[in-house]
Amino acid sequence: MSNSDQARVQSVNLPPDKVMHKLVSLAKRRGFIYPSSEIYEGLSSCFDYGPLGSELKKNIKELWWNTMTRRHQNIVGIDASILMNPRVWEASGHVASFNDPMIDDRTTKRRYRADHLIENHIEKLRRDGKDEELQKVQSAYENVASAEDSNRALYELIIAEKIKAPDTGSGDWTEVRQFNLMFQCNMGAVADKSSIVYLRPETAQGIFVNFHNVRESSRMRVPFGIAQIGKAFRNEIVKGNFIFRMVEFEQMEMQYFVKPGTQKGAFEAWREERFAWYSTALGLRAEKLHWYKHDKLAHYADLAYDIKYEFPFGIEEIEGIHSRTDFDLKQHQEYSGKNMEYIDQLTNERFIPYVVETSAGCDRLFLALLADAYREDVVDGEERVMLKLAPKVAPVKAAVLPLMKKGGMGEKAAQLRDELSESFLVQYDDAGSIGKRYRRQDEIGTPFCITVDHQSLEEGTVTVRFRDSAAQERIDLSRVREFICEKLV
Amino acid sequence: MSNSDQARVQSVNLPPDKVMHKLVSLAKRRGFIYPSSEIYEGLSSCFDYGPLGSELKKNIKELWWNTMTRRHQNIVGIDASILMNPRVWEASGHVASFNDPMIDDRTTKRRYRADHLIENHIEKLRRDGKDEELQKVQSAYENVASAEDSNRALYELIIAEKIKAPDTGSGDWTEVRQFNLMFQCNMGAVADKSSIVYLRPETAQGIFVNFHNVRESSRMRVPFGIAQIGKAFRNEIVKGNFIFRMVEFEQMEMQYFVKPGTQKGAFEAWREERFAWYSTALGLRAEKLHWYKHDKLAHYADLAYDIKYEFPFGIEEIEGIHSRTDFDLKQHQEYSGKNMEYIDQLTNERFIPYVVETSAGCDRLFLALLADAYREDVVDGEERVMLKLAPKVAPVKAAVLPLMKKGGMGEKAAQLRDELSESFLVQYDDAGSIGKRYRRQDEIGTPFCITVDHQSLEEGTVTVRFRDSAAQERIDLSRVREFICEKLV
Repeated sequence: MSNSDQARVQSVNLPPDKVMHKLVSLAKRRGFIYPSSEIYEGLSSCFDYGPLGSELKKNIKELWWNTMTRRHQNIVGIDASILMNPRVWEASGHVASFNDPMIDDRTTKRRYRADHLIENHIEKLRRDGKDEELQKVQSAYENVASAEDSNRALYELIIAEKIKAPDTGSGDWTEVRQFNLMFQCNMGAVADKSSIVYLRPETAQGIFVNFHNVRESSRMRVPFGIAQIGKAFRNEIVKGNFIFRMVEFEQMEMQYFVKPGTQKGAFEAWREERFAWYSTALGLRAEKLHWYKHDKLAHYADLAYDIKYEFPFGIEEIEGIHSRTDFDLKQHQEYSGKNMEYIDQLTNERFIPYVVETSAGCDRLFLALLADAYREDVVDGEERVMLKLAPKVAPVKAAVLPLMKKGGMGEKAAQLRDELSESFLVQYDDAGSIGKRYRRQDEIGTPFCITVDHQSLEEGTVTVRFRDSAAQERIDLSRVREFICEKLV
Repeated sequence: MSNSDQARVQSVNLPPDKVMHKLVSLAKRRGFIYPSSEIYEGLSSCFDYGPLGSELKKNIKELWWNTMTRRHQNIVGIDASILMNPRVWEASGHVASFNDPMIDDRTTKRRYRADHLIENHIEKLRRDGKDEELQKVQSAYENVASAEDSNRALYELIIAEKIKAPDTGSGDWTEVRQFNLMFQCNMGAVADKSSIVYLRPETAQGIFVNFHNVRESSRMRVPFGIAQIGKAFRNEIVKGNFIFRMVEFEQMEMQYFVKPGTQKGAFEAWREERFAWYSTALGLRAEKLHWYKHDKLAHYADLAYDIKYEFPFGIEEIEGIHSRTDFDLKQHQEYSGKNMEYIDQLTNERFIPYVVETSAGCDRLFLALLADAYREDVVDGEERVMLKLAPKVAPVKAAVLPLMKKGGMGEKAAQLRDELSESFLVQYDDAGSIGKRYRRQDEIGTPFCITVDHQSLEEGTVTVRFRDSAAQERIDLSRVREFICEKLV
């Protein structure tokens, strides 16, 4: 590629607040993401992955799975069912405390998170520089957690501060009530209490309850890990930001079982490895990735960091790395009556392992990849939209384009397409000018366009056109497959 | 491989009724399948895929997906959400008629399928040679469908024939009631009728409602297909046969949209292609595959065949190929008010496409593959269990075994394992005698065992030991990766 080639591309500066709107539209138009059940006006925060979206998502899952299981000799995968025995969720604490405090407005019939109302209010006081008031409300809010009746304390703070609904300005509040986020349904023919099952709100518990099954059948010794990709469901009231927060979503989780006392070392190693993965393996811009350390820890954790990505709408979590102690295995030991101890064959020590968890959101990562890749630039004086996805992530790896349909070029191109299709996903396109076809592929992130022209028929060569630089290179037809495969590693 | 090698393996004849018991035990012991939430005594007919099971299932899905989408230029995939707008299931007919007729025994509190009770009774009369009675009951049973109140007609036949419960011998029957098979839960914070959502009982509707979205964004022209792999849920009362009938299961479906009048040709082509796939691509024994033609067609179908596999417990469906007419798209047009017509760009014809569906059960196919592969034979006078899985289906592609840990063989083998792990799933095993390690790999279907011995260190060669024949071949270390990859195509 010569310097003159590179100079042909001029980037365009894009304000972040414009990106989401463009992304949502591109995602729909090109078949990445559609609103679910769209012909019935959709379903609250549910989305479907279209032809390109399902390929991109599959690539993400495949890369994660291979990285976690194949490249680590002491990690194996499982695929547990979404429906589990309901006692699992009693043991995990989800039945009792996987709740959000909700408050209703009697006049507007709208429902809000009580804690969010107060946090918004605090934020407003800060912006307005009302320091005295701010301090008072903050200290009252901090005391809510330790209050005897925290629902009542939230309610009283909302009333005392005369907090109104941010969208309607109304404030005709009911009491605050706890609302469980698990979806529940009845299994079996009779709808009674004994038949309730939950849609799992996280995949992790499917790993914990299988600890001994996996250890025994895979002959694993601590430290070892169990990885899983699967759907989880949360009946969230507050949703939004496209696919960032959905009621149905996919997790990619790994639970790493270690000897008590060694969790800190394991935690640091996983922290480093997982953070690096996003930029080195997936190609996200390193400067968009951030660490967030939890100061307020969940009851089961002794250390917790989130990896956050700088989305166009803010810096938000894409993966959590949490040191969960022996909380989960201990709970399951207590609730199931089964011994969850591990016996070290060499030292004869017995212990309940500690767990370091890496928990990534597949849909959020999908959105981060799209947002990170979205570009508008000018090639040879012509504007284009481009998804600068890493070749191994891109849904379509190559497009085969006959310069013209006639003269044998169409047949030759179709033949090449069939050959390449054995190895990866290829599109064939013979409609419109070659420039228009390049733009169509740029917009969906196809890294390579292979053009079959007169010379292809005479000399057996084709041009490879690179998405990012718009540069071209002529190579032998017989080398195309290998040429592309090398760039997918 | 010499003849003497082949003669070393003697097969053992295995009665079908012994196979299931052995399979279930092997599946648990080696990490293919565990009962779900086993430490809490499980959950009715739910299962978890273990480390080897999840790999095998992933291979099945990958092969199906690539066959359907990559190898057909006019088929694309999608991944729709499990939760959909509830009106989808009104349009599809599931809310009104996805029912089973159930009857309760007041004394034993057990519940039965009313139609199954009668069918068992008919079967018994046939076995007992009571021809006159048989004819009477059969003709009464055939009239049930057209009865004004079919529940009442079922009930009256059960009472008239004094049919008892097959397991308890009791017959203190209630009336027959229809029981809907869809799981339902409430979305949002308020549990009222307007918030009901269903867990999808089939993936097909996710394809139908996206017909125009996919067609437009992928620029498809009829005939074209949409493929999807995903979970579906049915609140079945009658379950069983291990993972054959589960309440949570995975479908691999493709809906092929054609011009009305051309569905028969498309149907025949798909019938042929899908049947061949099981033996040619997956390696199932052709003689175990059977056709079943539906004589009683579902209300939406004009032609329907099932592909059945001869399981140890009977000949049962693994895939349905159904000509669904324009029923589904028409229903969605009526219920959504959106136009579902297709306009042919060339001829300007407008029509609602007809649909030919290929619908395979992923978990059933998994079970068919295990049952088909299960072998007991004698190698060099020693009994072994072997899974004769096609190499591309097998969860572990190769095992790397150092003859001894010491003398550099362990390091060399670990190095080879790391190299091979870049391309496929590999196990490393240095525990126990080499014969014992071979058996461990035979039992999980690993097609190739690579042994690193003294000669490996001196000459850079290894032995490849083949699972089926137990024959060995010495090849260059540098060729191992290529050697195995060639056999995975």
